[in-house]
Amino acid sequence: MNAPLRVTASAPGKIILFGEHFVVFGEPAIACAVDLRAKVSVEKSKEKVIHIEALDLGCEATFPLKGEKYGFKGKTFRLRPIYTAAAETLDRIGEESGLNISVMSKIPVASGLGSSAATAVATVKAVSELFNASLPDRELFNLALEAERIVHANPSGIDPAVAMHGGVIMYSKRNGVRRLNVKGHIPIIVGDTGVRRSTGKLVQSVGKLRDIYPEIVDPIIKLGGELCLKASKLLEVKDLKGLGSLMNINHGLLSSVGVSSLELERLVYRARGAGALGAKLTGAGGGGCIIALSTPDRARHIAERLREVCREVYISQITSEGVKIDEKTCGT
Amino acid sequence: MNAPLRVTASAPGKIILFGEHFVVFGEPAIACAVDLRAKVSVEKSKEKVIHIEALDLGCEATFPLKGEKYGFKGKTFRLRPIYTAAAETLDRIGEESGLNISVMSKIPVASGLGSSAATAVATVKAVSELFNASLPDRELFNLALEAERIVHANPSGIDPAVAMHGGVIMYSKRNGVRRLNVKGHIPIIVGDTGVRRSTGKLVQSVGKLRDIYPEIVDPIIKLGGELCLKASKLLEVKDLKGLGSLMNINHGLLSSVGVSSLELERLVYRARGAGALGAKLTGAGGGGCIIALSTPDRARHIAERLREVCREVYISQITSEGVKIDEKTCGT
Repeated sequence: MNAPLRVTASAPGKIILFGEHFVVFGEPAIACAVDLRAKVSVEKSKEKVIHIEALDLGCEATFPLKGEKYGFKGKTFRLRPIYTAAAETLDRIGEESGLNISVMSKIPVASGLGSSAATAVATVKAVSELFNASLPDRELFNLALEAERIVHANPSGIDPAVAMHGGVIMYSKRNGVRRLNVKGHIPIIVGDTGVRRSTGKLVQSVGKLRDIYPEIVDPIIKLGGELCLKASKLLEVKDLKGLGSLMNINHGLLSSVGVSSLELERLVYRARGAGALGAKLTGAGGGGCIIALSTPDRARHIAERLREVCREVYISQITSEGVKIDEKTCGT
Repeated sequence: MNAPLRVTASAPGKIILFGEHFVVFGEPAIACAVDLRAKVSVEKSKEKVIHIEALDLGCEATFPLKGEKYGFKGKTFRLRPIYTAAAETLDRIGEESGLNISVMSKIPVASGLGSSAATAVATVKAVSELFNASLPDRELFNLALEAERIVHANPSGIDPAVAMHGGVIMYSKRNGVRRLNVKGHIPIIVGDTGVRRSTGKLVQSVGKLRDIYPEIVDPIIKLGGELCLKASKLLEVKDLKGLGSLMNINHGLLSSVGVSSLELERLVYRARGAGALGAKLTGAGGGGCIIALSTPDRARHIAERLREVCREVYISQITSEGVKIDEKTCGT
């Protein structure tokens, strides 16, 4: 079989539906893939370099094949996970060819939507396919996780797992990952406050509050876990109204441990007021994004109302589609 | 002893510090008297009528001594609890004299701050004193409670209890009222959203949510109770920082059961941003007031920041002073 000349792969972004923060303390959380995808095209280069063009990240740069020698500076810092994913994959399959990589992503960056993981997973998949290497999923995952370590010191592995497999997963430190059987379209509107906060600091602040008031905060954390279990059942029977109520409750619990903000509340109440079945902050909080659950007919209206007050709004839906090859150009 | 010609009594308003809504389901709540007072002056009238002038309520009217005959119309409706308190007290002490009553209140009305109870308690006290009747506290309380029934179909009795005795109380359906030993000045800033909502409807909505998701809402309610017990201890040792944290947590729990609103969040975050130790909605929610806990030196600054976005702002503090006689003019 001839190796292809050019391969394009894509992988989905993820959102946390329930259980952020509480998952740190051992409770389950639920994450799902959404159909905002990162697309990565790769082709061989005649030169022994890795050239990356990522218009959504606003940068383009050329790196030597062995990255340790390269000092990432300024904007090129953003290309590190893509570079690492490509270089690690080349190394794993024993290729020393240069690469031209082009990245197009619809996933907002640094917003807790798994942009870096989706890009890394798509890169690994595309590079592996370019050389006809049929790496098993486990290997693709590990290579992407390696790239994730560049961005997050201690990644949970959830983001690349969702980018790899799509769908909805429940995970906890104790019980690992379990896939939920969720069918059909579930529209999720994502609204971005535009405010960036440090996930690490927010996680720390909850830990601190728990240290001072364990008798109050521990039950809140435990309740976050209960809520996830209930939500997993409602997801499998697609009880959207019930899920919306649980999202609202979950948002209140996150507010009670201090990770909401006025910017987030503004979007949450705007979405609810526009007819969302439920709305909550997603991810670390303090800023970042909210998600709103909608019936299919209301999604556009909710998005429009959010756009009046919101930097970026995305209409998406839960998708079962994980990483996939979008296009393969072969030589004749 | 000659009966006085004119008596002025005053009673404090109340705020709920912790546990609103959850108290409906049997958990404890904490309420306290604040130094926003309702002042009531009474003197005998030569005519067999009860004349009431209440400039803060924007009305003035004359009623017959036996109120059943009188149809309360329009604005005079607001005078019903005052009238009832006066008429019931006259009846109890066997007097048939007419009265001139003048009411001045610093307590915002219909805001969950116990305005009607404070007015009723001050009226009962003043009328009783005017006729040298030394009614025991229990009787004064029952007469005021009778007047409260005019305003609230099924009053808990907390508002008149706080107006009578001042200070801080913890109460629950199971264990009744317990006074907490709170000393010194604790500044509380009250901000009014100006939005009026039905307490009954909000209480119902929480009950409905609990009916659907008892496994989630029951633990929230129970946690509200735990939080009150913890707060009662912090109040007695005057740990203001800790109390602020618990107020923030309590606010999140109220948000999780759906009784917050964007208007409330706006004031809550504004107060926290201005340096409040903690801030939460108080009372039924959906609108109404927030309270912010402050150190003495920051109270004015917080109030100023709130005034930029808020209809009415009051700097108050927890007071141990219940109903009292302010002035007594005697004949010579």
